[in-house]
Amino acid sequence: MKIARFSHDQAIRYGIIDDADLVVLDGDPLYSGFEPTGERVPLADAVLLAPVIPRSKVVAVGKNYRDHAAEMGGEAPTEPLLFLKPNTSVVGPGDAVVFPKQSERIDFEGELAIVIGGVAKNVSAERADEVIFGYTIANDVTARDLQESDGQWARAKGFDTFCPLGPYIETEFSFDGATIETRVDGEVRQHAPLSDMVHSIGAIVEYASAVWTLLPGDVILTGTPAGVGPFTDGQVVEVEVSGIGILRNTGRRP
Amino acid sequence: MKIARFSHDQAIRYGIIDDADLVVLDGDPLYSGFEPTGERVPLADAVLLAPVIPRSKVVAVGKNYRDHAAEMGGEAPTEPLLFLKPNTSVVGPGDAVVFPKQSERIDFEGELAIVIGGVAKNVSAERADEVIFGYTIANDVTARDLQESDGQWARAKGFDTFCPLGPYIETEFSFDGATIETRVDGEVRQHAPLSDMVHSIGAIVEYASAVWTLLPGDVILTGTPAGVGPFTDGQVVEVEVSGIGILRNTGRRP
Repeated sequence: MKIARFSHDQAIRYGIIDDADLVVLDGDPLYSGFEPTGERVPLADAVLLAPVIPRSKVVAVGKNYRDHAAEMGGEAPTEPLLFLKPNTSVVGPGDAVVFPKQSERIDFEGELAIVIGGVAKNVSAERADEVIFGYTIANDVTARDLQESDGQWARAKGFDTFCPLGPYIETEFSFDGATIETRVDGEVRQHAPLSDMVHSIGAIVEYASAVWTLLPGDVILTGTPAGVGPFTDGQVVEVEVSGIGILRNTGRRP
Repeated sequence: MKIARFSHDQAIRYGIIDDADLVVLDGDPLYSGFEPTGERVPLADAVLLAPVIPRSKVVAVGKNYRDHAAEMGGEAPTEPLLFLKPNTSVVGPGDAVVFPKQSERIDFEGELAIVIGGVAKNVSAERADEVIFGYTIANDVTARDLQESDGQWARAKGFDTFCPLGPYIETEFSFDGATIETRVDGEVRQHAPLSDMVHSIGAIVEYASAVWTLLPGDVILTGTPAGVGPFTDGQVVEVEVSGIGILRNTGRRP
């Protein structure tokens, strides 16, 4: 099932995608399950929002594709390299990514994102599926110049609007043959099979949940493949994961 | 006023310290103001909890005392060096700091903490007071070995229980002559006037709010003075800020 969070008639609700409609749900399915209200809203009439607002953490994994680690001038770490993005960086599909005046070099990074569905502490790789609600798509927007000068990545990767998520959460995502692709103004910049990840979904959940208690609604960005590059004013970045959809955002320098 | 969050009679509430009593408040004063319910609870009968649970961010400033930057082998950065601790790392006064098996070297770091009271974006240093609800005390517990090996500090400073906060929020804190002191099993390890900070409270709020929207309940740890060192199993670490109180936590290696 594809789950959307959307705005319609001045209300924010959740729905299941059913062809050209949203089957409206009673409450947030992360907490309330999948109870339809009986109402349907045409997708065309809804404004899609970030499908989840993390109450606690957006965890991200650095250098989790070997070819990206190489292009950044290093090897993929033997353990997942974790960092945090604040929930105030989250925006939805279609929202502008607003470039801060502190940076002259903003990059896109297309990523598959895990949405955590249950309280998770010390969860083994084998049991990771039990705490995963579904998968969505992320753009791990990065102020590349500040990432280098700061050393710590909290600022460079944490500005408001630097974590577009969406358009849907797929609760039955299949990794079989799945790919991720990032396009800038229609031109392909990143393309990789998800099987190129160094640390698997299970390994990431095991490692992260051994550090932090993961809460429902926490999101884990699983790393970006090679091909990252500048995201400039007015450009449209599309991140597509086969089987989930396309996350589309426009860069805007105020 | 000193504000506490406390547990009593199986309910979690907020109160104002009045001698040996808590004047119980109607709701969370961050959002509801200071409306007494008319009830009083003896402090001795209450279990104090972390006085705030950040809904979004715990921001922390690295190397904000010159002598601490020197003991870490460097100079204080010309701009505040920011990093994030997740809200799942927050515990209260009296709670155990649980040492994770991933680390063999846990350190204490006593710090003054700012509690944000309003939505804050691009707030100037001069207007910082308008978005500050009050001040509390923090221990920025750090897995020193992992801080070095990871490079990024999100894991080393983010484990569950690594952000003790409390015991109170002082809403009328005066910096005049105020000091911070950290004791381990009663022995003084850190002692400094708060005026030794490199970046002032106003400068920190200005810098952080130019990056992130700060939300009510966000907490900013303002850095630790010289004297950091190991925190071992069974030790009691007390962080005292004159005019606020003493934050006391025991280390526990399971």
